[in-house]
Amino acid sequence: MKWWGWGSPDIEVSPSPRFLRHLEEKLGPAPMGSPRPPVRQPPRLRPARPVSLPCPTAHDDATRLIYSGGRSYLDLIRLRSGGTIDGVDAVAFPDSAADIAALLASDNVALVPFGGGTSVVGGVSPLRGRHDAVVALDMSGLGRIVEIDTTAMSVTAEAGVFGPRLETAVRQQGLTLGHFPQSFEYSTLGGWIATRSAGQESTRYGRIDELVASVSAITPAGRIDAGRVPASATGPEIRELLVGSEGVFGVITEATLRLHPIAAARRYRSYLFPSFTQGIEACRQMLQSSLRPAVLRLSDETETQLSFEIAGTPQLAQRALRFTGRRPGAHLLLAFDGSEAAAARSVVRKLHGLPLGSSPGRHWERDRFRHPYLRDALIDLGYLIDTFETAAPWSRIQPLYEALKKAPSGIVACHLSHAYSDGASLYFTVIDKARPGEEAEQWHAFKARVTDTIVTHGGTLSHHHAIGTDHKRWLADERGELALSLLRTIKGELDPHGIMNPGKLL
Amino acid sequence: MKWWGWGSPDIEVSPSPRFLRHLEEKLGPAPMGSPRPPVRQPPRLRPARPVSLPCPTAHDDATRLIYSGGRSYLDLIRLRSGGTIDGVDAVAFPDSAADIAALLASDNVALVPFGGGTSVVGGVSPLRGRHDAVVALDMSGLGRIVEIDTTAMSVTAEAGVFGPRLETAVRQQGLTLGHFPQSFEYSTLGGWIATRSAGQESTRYGRIDELVASVSAITPAGRIDAGRVPASATGPEIRELLVGSEGVFGVITEATLRLHPIAAARRYRSYLFPSFTQGIEACRQMLQSSLRPAVLRLSDETETQLSFEIAGTPQLAQRALRFTGRRPGAHLLLAFDGSEAAAARSVVRKLHGLPLGSSPGRHWERDRFRHPYLRDALIDLGYLIDTFETAAPWSRIQPLYEALKKAPSGIVACHLSHAYSDGASLYFTVIDKARPGEEAEQWHAFKARVTDTIVTHGGTLSHHHAIGTDHKRWLADERGELALSLLRTIKGELDPHGIMNPGKLL
Repeated sequence: MKWWGWGSPDIEVSPSPRFLRHLEEKLGPAPMGSPRPPVRQPPRLRPARPVSLPCPTAHDDATRLIYSGGRSYLDLIRLRSGGTIDGVDAVAFPDSAADIAALLASDNVALVPFGGGTSVVGGVSPLRGRHDAVVALDMSGLGRIVEIDTTAMSVTAEAGVFGPRLETAVRQQGLTLGHFPQSFEYSTLGGWIATRSAGQESTRYGRIDELVASVSAITPAGRIDAGRVPASATGPEIRELLVGSEGVFGVITEATLRLHPIAAARRYRSYLFPSFTQGIEACRQMLQSSLRPAVLRLSDETETQLSFEIAGTPQLAQRALRFTGRRPGAHLLLAFDGSEAAAARSVVRKLHGLPLGSSPGRHWERDRFRHPYLRDALIDLGYLIDTFETAAPWSRIQPLYEALKKAPSGIVACHLSHAYSDGASLYFTVIDKARPGEEAEQWHAFKARVTDTIVTHGGTLSHHHAIGTDHKRWLADERGELALSLLRTIKGELDPHGIMNPGKLL
Repeated sequence: MKWWGWGSPDIEVSPSPRFLRHLEEKLGPAPMGSPRPPVRQPPRLRPARPVSLPCPTAHDDATRLIYSGGRSYLDLIRLRSGGTIDGVDAVAFPDSAADIAALLASDNVALVPFGGGTSVVGGVSPLRGRHDAVVALDMSGLGRIVEIDTTAMSVTAEAGVFGPRLETAVRQQGLTLGHFPQSFEYSTLGGWIATRSAGQESTRYGRIDELVASVSAITPAGRIDAGRVPASATGPEIRELLVGSEGVFGVITEATLRLHPIAAARRYRSYLFPSFTQGIEACRQMLQSSLRPAVLRLSDETETQLSFEIAGTPQLAQRALRFTGRRPGAHLLLAFDGSEAAAARSVVRKLHGLPLGSSPGRHWERDRFRHPYLRDALIDLGYLIDTFETAAPWSRIQPLYEALKKAPSGIVACHLSHAYSDGASLYFTVIDKARPGEEAEQWHAFKARVTDTIVTHGGTLSHHHAIGTDHKRWLADERGELALSLLRTIKGELDPHGIMNPGKLL
């Protein structure tokens, strides 16, 4: 993985001239000018504090750098600063649950469980807490696929396995995970569970909390194996304490996920609505009549225009213009793995949607994991670019959306996705001119504005990115003091010395 | 509610002569002889310890008796013993969350939250723990329906509301709960959540843990409001600690449930399979091809025969006999609220099922809440009759079933219901001759045999009846010591004086 940005160093995605012109029209000239070579000077790391660990350990700066942050905007700004920054003191490479138990026996070294390192909320920041040193715990050594149970249609695997390998293995049995977060290529089973993630096809196949049948974790206080049956009425569900635990209770080492048969065919359908509001109504009606598209993604007018610009599909933009008059309209992208396309079309018709065919869907599928690369290119150009997301019941979606559109400056694009019978998530992309040298302050002000707005309007702090460091100060607003105190008590029992991922979540 | 048995005193259900003959053939003559008048002499209650509570309170024996137990076999034996038994010392009738907060401020009176009192696992037993007195907390005063949100398709109600009233209210909006446990007529929203219940239509509509969007509870340490959005990635899910909490952390006072549109039509279809094993395979294939029947209930050969005897449908039994030769076959009852009947039929055909039409389904629907009444009649006749249930992944269902069929003596009938893509629940009914005067010992031996067998074969202790007192000693076997210790720590924080429902769950 690149130290300065997303994914493989072999892949760079550049914005099209058309898209850059659009940004310039909206925001003024790119702050760094264009084109110019991006900054690729690695930061210096502060000297490592000495640690000695009971498993193979890397101490060199090149390795330390890779594990010294996730992929949030703040992480990228810090990594690209060219200055001297904090890093992990070492990287441990455990190979088994026993290695992890041995590592957790320490009481003075902070441990950061590290799957793919794709957190966009500071979930793997190298924080020492009150400890002498901080070590990243690379989970890739626990990457074994333990069992594919074709009778129960489930897979049991170690937590360090990466998405593509796990999906490839289950596909050989005619099955699929159905779990495709945007980070899919670079994220792990354990990371998905620790962050309570959702994927691009969760509307049909379920979030990770619905897919996960059992979770094993090793905590400083011992091992927990939670859940082993399809459903149970044996008291509170401990598994649900591990899902979303963000490494603060212990290390997720293994899990069993429910699988799905691979669909015989996938059908993409796109529609254009006169307004986002009308599109929202269509999504609600579909979900409430039991339709479960594999992909449901409704872009607001801003995002619809942006996506037509990015994809370079002027003919679609033209059709949209003819359809809506001056407004760009709201693009609804659907994918069906079942036989629901006709039922969905009748909802769309009733609400005056214009069919756009299947090509926008196929474009989306081709590019589904490429957007984070584009972010790097825009940061190179001097833009602040970040995403944030929330969820709310249908009855609160519209006011929440309107408030959030106004909260930040710059281009604020939104889509609705991950829909449920009772509500949906809203996912925002914000692009603004960065203030060179003051990016972190600028970002903190932006983050405070949007998160305060979410809290005020009854949204959740995160629908699938998690808490990490970035949302921590608002957690009590959402959960209440007693719930937070309860989570701290649980942490106190499982991690009495506070070595597990300090500074995150709680 | 009857003090000696199930439901309304106006309803008695008598076994048909045909059914009684069947029992006599299998088990020998009814121990009490038949007919003879049932014992209806109420027990004496030990004198109440004095309590003074900050809300209306009943102290009379007739009221105390009604609240001094649930409806487990042990409860019924104790209540029908004719001797002197322990009871609650008083019954409190709070009318608001504030009343409940005031009651929970006490530190020397044990409180048993009491919804409909239908627990079949000792969940409302009048246990004092280490306290001076024990008080049942009647929840019916908190029975308000707070809001039906037709946009988000959800209902918010106080926890004491009974099933029929809540369903009636939402049906007026064209919606349904989809949650129909066998206790539906006499159980409450709070009880469903506290016991992590499932209903007869959960295969399609989801268990209570899937239906519940948010839960509010008042604990001795304060109020918790958990969940308010369709989904969230803001850390461990505290709501899942309240679902299944069985009153030991605090009192569930309010909840929001997701609703469903009322289906345009319901279609019942019955099929007969040559064997339970083949029927299981059909159920698995249906669930794994995304079919979600509203009702899916596959009876094993014993239960199929019993149900044909109870329903007095000799013509079905005849058809079954012709179909399977000597064996009775396994009856699969399906109900479809969607358009899935044809897809299900093609699975059935492939596995050699015989169509029996829709009449068995209509009979089942008519009698769906009446079986607990029949139990009372059989206890009158001197039979031990009890049910127990578990769940397991498909790959473990067959060995679990076979082991459990052999575990108890008497007639052991089973059905598979509540199916999931990765497994299903097994529900057993056991009828044996009771040993007069030794019913409790006999039951404890029976319970130990079946529960040990469940644990050995990797089933869960309960799929929807909960833990109560009856399953408590096995909880560590299922959850592990660390998980159990964690639940105790949570209880310690929320209920530091241990006043909440002592002796249950933990």
